[in-house]
This record gives sequence, C-alpha cells and structure tokens, in this order.
Amino acid sequence: MEDQFVTLAHGNGGRYMRELIAGIFVRHLANPQLDVAADAVYLAMPPGDLMITTDGFTVEPLEFPGGDIGSLAVHGTVNDLAVAGATPLYLTLNTFIEEGLEISQLDRLIQSMAHAAQSCGVNVVAGDTKVLRRGEGGGLYLATTGIGIRRPGLRLGVDRICAGDKILVSGPVGDHGTAVLLAREEFGLSGDLASDSASVFVLAQALWDQPGLRFTRDPTRGGLVTVMHDIAHATGLTVRLEENAIPVHAPVRGVCDILGYDPLYLACEGRVVAVVSEEAAARACDIWRALPGGEAAAIIGQLSGIGAQVVMQTEIGGERLLNELEDDPLPRIC
Amino acid sequence: MEDQFVTLAHGNGGRYMRELIAGIFVRHLANPQLDVAADAVYLAMPPGDLMITTDGFTVEPLEFPGGDIGSLAVHGTVNDLAVAGATPLYLTLNTFIEEGLEISQLDRLIQSMAHAAQSCGVNVVAGDTKVLRRGEGGGLYLATTGIGIRRPGLRLGVDRICAGDKILVSGPVGDHGTAVLLAREEFGLSGDLASDSASVFVLAQALWDQPGLRFTRDPTRGGLVTVMHDIAHATGLTVRLEENAIPVHAPVRGVCDILGYDPLYLACEGRVVAVVSEEAAARACDIWRALPGGEAAAIIGQLSGIGAQVVMQTEIGGERLLNELEDDPLPRIC
Repeated sequence: MEDQFVTLAHGNGGRYMRELIAGIFVRHLANPQLDVAADAVYLAMPPGDLMITTDGFTVEPLEFPGGDIGSLAVHGTVNDLAVAGATPLYLTLNTFIEEGLEISQLDRLIQSMAHAAQSCGVNVVAGDTKVLRRGEGGGLYLATTGIGIRRPGLRLGVDRICAGDKILVSGPVGDHGTAVLLAREEFGLSGDLASDSASVFVLAQALWDQPGLRFTRDPTRGGLVTVMHDIAHATGLTVRLEENAIPVHAPVRGVCDILGYDPLYLACEGRVVAVVSEEAAARACDIWRALPGGEAAAIIGQLSGIGAQVVMQTEIGGERLLNELEDDPLPRIC
Repeated sequence: MEDQFVTLAHGNGGRYMRELIAGIFVRHLANPQLDVAADAVYLAMPPGDLMITTDGFTVEPLEFPGGDIGSLAVHGTVNDLAVAGATPLYLTLNTFIEEGLEISQLDRLIQSMAHAAQSCGVNVVAGDTKVLRRGEGGGLYLATTGIGIRRPGLRLGVDRICAGDKILVSGPVGDHGTAVLLAREEFGLSGDLASDSASVFVLAQALWDQPGLRFTRDPTRGGLVTVMHDIAHATGLTVRLEENAIPVHAPVRGVCDILGYDPLYLACEGRVVAVVSEEAAARACDIWRALPGGEAAAIIGQLSGIGAQVVMQTEIGGERLLNELEDDPLPRIC
C-alpha cells in the first residue's frame, strides 16, 4: 500500500481494490475461511442451532478512549449472539469507506478489529468494500453479521419473563456514550473516561446453566432505560428500578450532570442486563462479581405490577416514571 | 407512520425507531424468522454445506429503470450464492439512512426488496437500522448478508479452470451500468435502457449437473473484463475473448460510444459468466438459451496460452490487450 488516502479507484473492483484488500483486510483478518476471490464461502459448523445477527456501526469519532469502530463492531456483534445464548463463531464485514480516509487509519482500525476478533475466538470469513465520494460518508461505516451456535436446550427471551423476576446489570452504565461524547471535543471537556467496549460472552455464558435465567441483553443504543422499556412493552409488566442500586462511574455521572445527559439512556458496549427469577438473583449476581468485568454487577430492579411502564424508585424514597427516548441524544454513538 | 421524512430520532433505539421498523421493515419483510425484538435469531437449516456471502450497496440514484437499491441488494446477494453453487435461503439487512430521506421512498424501496426476496425464495431474517446526519450519507446504503446451502458434491472455483476451457456469458453486458448512468441525468441523455438487475439462480443452477462446469461468477463492479482479469490472475492463463461474440444491446453500445465508456467494463446485475470444458461449452450454451433471461447466451472466449492477460480478438482479425481498471469509471453503480 503506497497510497496515503483511499480514493474512488479503491472501490472499482479492479487492481487498486485488490491491492487495498490484500494490503489491509487480508493481511490482518486472514484465516483459512477468508477466500477473497470467492463470491460465497463455506462455513464449517458444529452441530446445533444456527443463530444469526447483524449490526451497523457509524460511531464518530472512529477512534475513542477504550476502543474504535473496528473493535466495537466485533464486540457489538459477538455480544448480540452471546445474549441470545449462542457461542459466536464467524463474522462477515461490510466496509463503506469515504474517499479521503487515511489508509494508515483504516489499517489501524482493521488491525484493531482483527485483534478483537481473535480475542473473542471468531473468524472474519467474508467481506465487501465500497468507496463513497468525499462528503457522502462519515469516514467509515461498518456492517457486520455474526453466526453462532446456540447452547442446546437454552431458550432465552422476553416471553419467558415473569412478574417478580429480578433485573441485574453486569457493571456501570453509560461509559461508552460518555467516552464518545468527550472524544468529540465539541464540549471543551476532557477526562480519563474510557468506553466499556468489550465482549460480554464470558459473563453471558456464566449464567446459561443457572435455573431461573429468563433473558439477557446488552444495553447499547438508548442505554439501560431503553432495554427496560423493551421489557415493559413486551411483557405488559412494570419495571421498577432502584436508583441507588444502579452502578454508574463517578466521572460518568459528573460529565452527564454538566452536559445534561442521563447516563441511564447512554449506550454501553460491554455490559449485559439479565432478567432472572427472584430466587436465582443473588446467585447470578455473585457469579458475575467473581468474573473479570463483572466486579460491579448489581441487582437493580424487579418486574412488579401490571402496566407497561418503567418506574424509578429514587434514593429519597420517591418514584418517577422514566420516559422512552424521543429525540436521539447522541447520533452516531455506535 | 405519520412522519414524512426520516429524522435522527428514527435511529435512537427508542419509540420512533420502533415505529419505523414496525411501519416499514416488518410490514414488508415479515416472516416467521423475523423477530425484531431478538438480538439474534435462529435459522432452520436443511442438511448440507452452509455458504455465506456479504455485499454493500450504494447505488445512486436509489431508483433507476429496471430496479432500485432494494431489489438490487436482493439480486446481488442471491447471485453471489448462486454462482458459488448454493441455493439462497436467508438474508440479513443493514440500512444506513440519511436524515431527510422521504419515508414514502424508503417504504417503496423496502417493499421492492420484499418482492424481490419473495420471488427469489429467500427470507429476510434479521436487520439493523442506523440513521446518519444530513450530509453524511448518500440517502441510503444497504448491506446484505446471504446464507445458502451448497449443492452436494459441487465444487466450483478458479482453481478448477484448465487451459482450453471455454467462457460463456448468459446475456448482453453493460446494461446495469448504462441504465444507472442515464438515470443520473447528468449527461443530458435519455433512453429506454433498463438495468438487467435480476436473480441468476435459475441460470446458474441449470449448469450444476453439467460435467465440465468449472466456475461461475456474476460480472458486477468492473464488468466482464474484471472477471476475466480475476480468472487470468488466478490461473496464470491468457483469456482470449472474441469481440464479435460478446452480446451487447445496441442502445448500450450507442450510449457508451457517445459518453466514452466501454460496456465490457460496466456492471451487469443479472448476468452470469461460466467457464466450462471445451466439450461441454455448446451444451451449456444451449441450456442457457432455452431459459428465460438466457436467450442471448454466447460462447465468448477461451483460456488459451500462458501469461496472465486478457486479449481481445477484434472483429477485423487483430488483437489487443484489455487492461485492468484503474480509475473507477462509475462510482456508486451498485
């Protein structure tokens, strides 16, 4: 790769594109399944139920404390499989590159993606690259599709949630959203906040054998409260959260207070929410606290009462309704 | 859907996004597998080798004679599976929507996608939607991943190509590229040209039982000549094309002559190229000509001689080298 910037010629299907793919994508992502000359590739699958998920990534800036769009795409896709009870195996990758992106940055991002994939035990097996004219893209957009195998016999879903079930979160919320916010530098604030971008596979898997596990989800866009609304809508039950039980890093709370955001509506990218039976809650929380990344796990609420709403029990003993998101507080957060 | 335009709030993970997904994506694409509330979905798979492919779509304009970005995405993904010897079963869909896109247009495009998927016998099983700020997207980008099952025992690939093999194309080349070019209206030309956007599954499948079938590919970005270069590079053999054997619609040739394009480098979206043994060529061509969409199929060349190059034997008996694409002649063609 002698060029310094991506040009439209890198997207034309010819020699430049072949060089870009060989010089960056194949070099970092190469594995036995990645056949860049094939239109479709064969995937060796172990026995079991095939699970699929897909996700788009538009985060801006492309690199931020704690991660970048490459590692974020891997973690986001791995996490969607993990919370559905599946072991992630394969990823496909679409890149939409804006003309003018520095090739050295693209190289860093794809290398970061490769490291994340390796540490998650997944292979990137197929890809496609499109180049957009200057002004038509946000530097880089990614879309990833993930394939995994579901744990035999495991069925997780909102339809399994019952009144009385407890709600757990594996760690502090709002880190990713706040870190990306600060990385944009448009607020004149800085700090040592970092995104929580990480695989939640080990945390999710740790609960798969626990009786009473109903449902898991990673609270990304729209944050914790949006997952709570999804649960309330799907079950018709009231989600009751305890304000002082929800872990939030102090600097996250500080930044949010200054800028007028609520960390409970900001994206996490390395946390998992679980709904478990009342009896199983303490044990599930202990399991998480013993794992790396789960040290701050907490029981934060309960399904209690009829009426599809989300209620916060405040520290001073009051109650308030938590509304659904209307405007997007932070576009291009993931 | 009471809104007229897509706004950032439609991408926030909350109520507006849920309404957009329910009002457009679920309404048109709904099927037993499409569980919009799940992080990952289970896919029932027949026995056989799992094949996967992924592709991005950035065509501009979003609607053009003969198709639109929705049907194009389905056909492109189905075709990548078909030319790899697989029967397409499932698609996933990523949408990147620019703020300000008319909701009525998005609705048309997703409806078109649904019709194409239905006529190809594939189900859209998972999706993700991101909204980009105004000025940051080209109206709409799509990324689709396709899953299929390979015909048992069938192995197609450039590694199976031998000296002496013949090259076939299923129909006239350059239609899609020329139709999109004219649809942009920046050239002051108009005509009744239409894209060839279509599934090539029936054409590809028709050759699967033919002894001597080596390799099939759909000539999209970079057109017919780019596929020929891929073959020449991979095999080290010379691809020798016969100029007067290559089918090109007269209006396509006319427009290309005026604008200075070569239709052999322009994208097709409903054609397939096959490499077959010399003995099998006539039979394969007859099979295609008897099928809808294959009426103009032709034997257009042969692998003959050492040296990874593409040579055109001209109508007047001369020879010239066909170079690889350098600049992109037509950005955002697919």
